[in-house]
Amino acid sequence: MSKILVFGHKNPDTDAIASAISFSYLQNELGKETEAVALGEIGEETAYALNYFGVEAPRVIETAANETNTVYLVDHNEAQQSVSDIKEVEIASVVDHHRISNIDTANPLYYRAEPVGCTATIILKIFKENNVTIPKHIAGIMLSAIVSDTLLFKSPTSTPEDEAAAKELAGIAEVDLDVYGLDMLKAGTNMGTKTAEEMIDMDAKSFPMGDKNVRIAQINVVDIEDVFAKQSELEKAIQEANLENNYDLFILVVTNILDSDSMVLALGNPIIAVEDAFGVKLENNKALLKGVVSRKKQVVPQLTEALTK
Amino acid sequence: MSKILVFGHKNPDTDAIASAISFSYLQNELGKETEAVALGEIGEETAYALNYFGVEAPRVIETAANETNTVYLVDHNEAQQSVSDIKEVEIASVVDHHRISNIDTANPLYYRAEPVGCTATIILKIFKENNVTIPKHIAGIMLSAIVSDTLLFKSPTSTPEDEAAAKELAGIAEVDLDVYGLDMLKAGTNMGTKTAEEMIDMDAKSFPMGDKNVRIAQINVVDIEDVFAKQSELEKAIQEANLENNYDLFILVVTNILDSDSMVLALGNPIIAVEDAFGVKLENNKALLKGVVSRKKQVVPQLTEALTK
Repeated sequence: MSKILVFGHKNPDTDAIASAISFSYLQNELGKETEAVALGEIGEETAYALNYFGVEAPRVIETAANETNTVYLVDHNEAQQSVSDIKEVEIASVVDHHRISNIDTANPLYYRAEPVGCTATIILKIFKENNVTIPKHIAGIMLSAIVSDTLLFKSPTSTPEDEAAAKELAGIAEVDLDVYGLDMLKAGTNMGTKTAEEMIDMDAKSFPMGDKNVRIAQINVVDIEDVFAKQSELEKAIQEANLENNYDLFILVVTNILDSDSMVLALGNPIIAVEDAFGVKLENNKALLKGVVSRKKQVVPQLTEALTK
Repeated sequence: MSKILVFGHKNPDTDAIASAISFSYLQNELGKETEAVALGEIGEETAYALNYFGVEAPRVIETAANETNTVYLVDHNEAQQSVSDIKEVEIASVVDHHRISNIDTANPLYYRAEPVGCTATIILKIFKENNVTIPKHIAGIMLSAIVSDTLLFKSPTSTPEDEAAAKELAGIAEVDLDVYGLDMLKAGTNMGTKTAEEMIDMDAKSFPMGDKNVRIAQINVVDIEDVFAKQSELEKAIQEANLENNYDLFILVVTNILDSDSMVLALGNPIIAVEDAFGVKLENNKALLKGVVSRKKQVVPQLTEALTK
């Protein structure tokens, strides 16, 4: 039998990569034959984490069915965020911490989702339930995932369980959680070398909401103005992306990881849904969302409601 | 806040009822305010189990949103098998052992599915993970659910985990597993008092497959011929049900729990899909499926494939 492929969502963030690697490691220890792969190139934050702990980046795949008939999903479940030929393989396992949508299987499967801040927090629990020891490098990338998803526990998605998991993993990985965490987050905020096209795509996900196809991208920075200095290039890139991919609505969420606010840039239809969802008025296509840092908890549900009511 | 409602699927079987009661008990012990309810009247097998262990049948509800905004699903996830107004409440938790299909949430949730024979087997695991003691009457109905779903471990859906769970629960409930189990199963096979309409509805579920709306009912018996003595009434009832509910295809699976074979009676379109799925020729609308006892594992995937290829 060919190897089971384990992967996170397209445009992988640190959790998508670290959860694939750590869940694959766990399953191999339990006797399965799996390989962690990625649905896209890793970003600078993830590269920092992998490099720090001496872990190789997973191989990038475009399709799965050409090499396996079974896949394990981590950190996502929605078909449009998964591998392009997901309908042609069997999803035997999902570990996730998102809403559930647009997933269909013919057979019963293992599905483990909890409303915590990070998939790696759930994977730590599964390691323990199976009495599998976590090696230092795996602990290191798992704690990196938790720091990344919770913005060092400042995101409203962060739970006491995430914080406890990160502390436990930091002990195994032998790092100072706060020092390492902030260094890693800052490594992901360097936009100097990025084109507008890259910036709107590096952490972007698609969501069907009502009858609209919504694209939501997020960038973490330490200075929001740096990004909006390029507003006209960003708008041009977004309009091209909307045309090319039939996105009805594109929302770029630019998050300041130090003060935990976000500025959104929104283009498409219906733009009024964005104003409704967040109770703001867009000016020059943008609005400041005070205290908003989480796409999952502070953007997706609000927009879903505004677009389905 | 109003109580969280916990329920299994429509046309509840013993697992749907027992899992709702036991998961509600567990959540209440963990500090939640929940109530187990049912999406339909219980059958004779379930009544036998509840009566044996002195547990009251849950109240039957038609809708949920009139009394709560949050629900926990057990033993199902597909909207068409759930409460009629499922779209109007938030699904905060699912514990299940079926395929995933036709479920959408706006928010992250707790979702626990494993490919085991019975939801109660997973609930036993969650009891243990939370260090909650299982009282005798709860253990009794949980083991009843496992016996029911696995046909005393003879179904191909049964796993070593289900058998171990049932044995452990039988110890707590202080019953002889084989003696009690067979008595309970037999209590569910009494068709003498049932009309044809009741027989095709007592354990029936709907499944979207490709662009078809498929209804699959199952009856457990100790003598298949007893049921087919009423074939013309059953066919009439099925044809009326198809018309009334827009089912494209109706499949009645009559399972002999002693020799583990099933006779199917199929009416609707495309009937060829039934022959394709099981590699049989229907004669007089029926065919014997040797060794088939599990709707979930031996009927649904095969039909789904035949109807979506």
